[in-house]
Amino acid sequence: MSALAHLNTPSALIDLDRMQANIARMQTRMDSLQVKFRPHVKTSKSAAVAAQQLAAGACGVTVSTLREAEQFYADGISDILYAVGMVANKLPQALALRRLGCDLKIITDSLASAQAIVQFGQLHGEILEVWIEIDSDGHRSGIKPEQQALLDVGQCLHQGGMKLGGVLTHAGSSYEYDTPVALIAIAEQERAACVLAAERLRAAGLPCPVVSVGSTPTALAAESLAGVTEVRAGVYVFFDLVMHNVGVCRMDEIALSVLTTVIGHQEEKGWAIVDAGWMAMSRDRGTQRQKCDFAYGQVCDLAAQPLAGYVLSSANQEHGILSLRDGVDADIVRRFPIGTQLRILPNHACATGAQYPEYIAIDAAGEVRHWPRLHGW
Amino acid sequence: MSALAHLNTPSALIDLDRMQANIARMQTRMDSLQVKFRPHVKTSKSAAVAAQQLAAGACGVTVSTLREAEQFYADGISDILYAVGMVANKLPQALALRRLGCDLKIITDSLASAQAIVQFGQLHGEILEVWIEIDSDGHRSGIKPEQQALLDVGQCLHQGGMKLGGVLTHAGSSYEYDTPVALIAIAEQERAACVLAAERLRAAGLPCPVVSVGSTPTALAAESLAGVTEVRAGVYVFFDLVMHNVGVCRMDEIALSVLTTVIGHQEEKGWAIVDAGWMAMSRDRGTQRQKCDFAYGQVCDLAAQPLAGYVLSSANQEHGILSLRDGVDADIVRRFPIGTQLRILPNHACATGAQYPEYIAIDAAGEVRHWPRLHGW
Repeated sequence: MSALAHLNTPSALIDLDRMQANIARMQTRMDSLQVKFRPHVKTSKSAAVAAQQLAAGACGVTVSTLREAEQFYADGISDILYAVGMVANKLPQALALRRLGCDLKIITDSLASAQAIVQFGQLHGEILEVWIEIDSDGHRSGIKPEQQALLDVGQCLHQGGMKLGGVLTHAGSSYEYDTPVALIAIAEQERAACVLAAERLRAAGLPCPVVSVGSTPTALAAESLAGVTEVRAGVYVFFDLVMHNVGVCRMDEIALSVLTTVIGHQEEKGWAIVDAGWMAMSRDRGTQRQKCDFAYGQVCDLAAQPLAGYVLSSANQEHGILSLRDGVDADIVRRFPIGTQLRILPNHACATGAQYPEYIAIDAAGEVRHWPRLHGW
Repeated sequence: MSALAHLNTPSALIDLDRMQANIARMQTRMDSLQVKFRPHVKTSKSAAVAAQQLAAGACGVTVSTLREAEQFYADGISDILYAVGMVANKLPQALALRRLGCDLKIITDSLASAQAIVQFGQLHGEILEVWIEIDSDGHRSGIKPEQQALLDVGQCLHQGGMKLGGVLTHAGSSYEYDTPVALIAIAEQERAACVLAAERLRAAGLPCPVVSVGSTPTALAAESLAGVTEVRAGVYVFFDLVMHNVGVCRMDEIALSVLTTVIGHQEEKGWAIVDAGWMAMSRDRGTQRQKCDFAYGQVCDLAAQPLAGYVLSSANQEHGILSLRDGVDADIVRRFPIGTQLRILPNHACATGAQYPEYIAIDAAGEVRHWPRLHGW
């Protein structure tokens, strides 16, 4: 890993071998379950990463902002799902993308928004493709599959001349579980809710070709995807410590890490001070309430091998405090002299990546590539 | 605030009147205490904001990365303190800045780093200006004023031909207090430790012209700054909910807010869903252990007037859940219809600002300016 010695710190490193293995693992699983796969590119916000996901067989991408849709369309990807509820003031931006040729799908979970979409589409003579968001676990947005609102929204869109493309759900609460049995159960709950919603729409004479589900934990746990046509997942491409605690990846599958340099010590406290603070790691403390709290990250050597017990225990803006999680390392100064370079595995890859304008992608041969990353809205 | 209706959401808004009042308040205080003031621009990372701080009387700036130093020097600011411990692999970048004409000061808190600085300076024929970092409260980096290492580092730098510019400290633990008595005490502790360090260096025959202290709470609480030559503070320029809980600002002095749009509801839960999630607010939960926990932020109307009891109670990447902190608002759908625009006051202005490539600065007349913000290292 001598290629790393010349890099600026902090930097966001992608271990390409690990990332490619993660992409292959998910795509192989989706192929065997006979569903399409639409990765959520909000995790990487990188054209180079998305290109590898598509090359492996993905059918298109999911985005979390219209700015991402614009960027990925400019990068050559046309089949894009904007998976955050559409609101009237964003419709002109969505229309502009469709007029450029982007096959953009939008979503809604309310009659008020559906009416705004119909009104806007009719005004501009555009048949917008809309999917209805289903609430499968009560954790955020969506219409429950048994609610009358589902049919009301479907009829509003269909009778209003829009293309009712399907239903989608995201069982975000899957992040709260950490046993195979619980993950299989929440995956089945997610599947069943979304399929039920599709069946109710079809029984009411409405079209519903797409049934889209997913989160990284449920995608990797589902035993059956009967009735589902496509799966979405994001963080699997890098994985992180939260996913490690959920139980869907090994620590040596985490493909994103932060390269840092030791800049000082407080010897009597057993602290090394590093130049990766919360600006480099993000403020995400996603492992705080999980079975293993990694504070601001797991410390690894330059080869990304975890140094057991050493975590980034605290963080200021540009200072991280590296220490043993339990106890004081009286030998911290000799173990990690000033200038030592280390890698820190993050709690949450989506949040850590967002702190950087680019990734440094490194392959097994040590070749380094700089991959730009989208920032802002 | 009709100017806001046409803005993209989420956006990071600066209320210019509030910011200018915050700048004036701090500078007036520093003038009356007869010390120079060197704002920490890591908070805003914006040339336009720094320009107003300098116009009000600041003597130069403090930065947290060399990338900031490069950017602010390019923007015309020469007197720059890089207030994170220098390490050998960053010295070439510091030298390049000095060779361009930047009056860059660097800092150290160890003999190992001091030796590396001397060796590098001598090798390149450059007299680097170095300040010694003092630990005044045990919260992070620095040499305690009574330690022998202080004199060892001073002698190493001075005898090695570098310019020993002074001492600095940052009582970051001041953020943990919330009473005037405690803030006055930690300010005095910060002052006394730094002045003692300067006196010890001088008694040993070493130069120590600068005695630099500061944090926003101590700068606003200090009753005496005898022996101090300059103060540093960052977040005061915007303030935030953490500083409100510390007790150094009113809520109507917070100058940074996030503009957001209501995109949906879960009526039976009393939730409005907004398009400001943790990507828009940051993951900073700085008020979590303070006397009032604002979750992911305080909800305000478009005029930035707080809506008492309403907070951003939870956040996913691009979804925020807005609710009453205590209880369920059965009228949430009618109170905040889809499309409603709101402003959210952040826990931590430094972290929230970092999520945006630009600020939208608005004055009392509603005029809008787009101010770019530095991202990355």
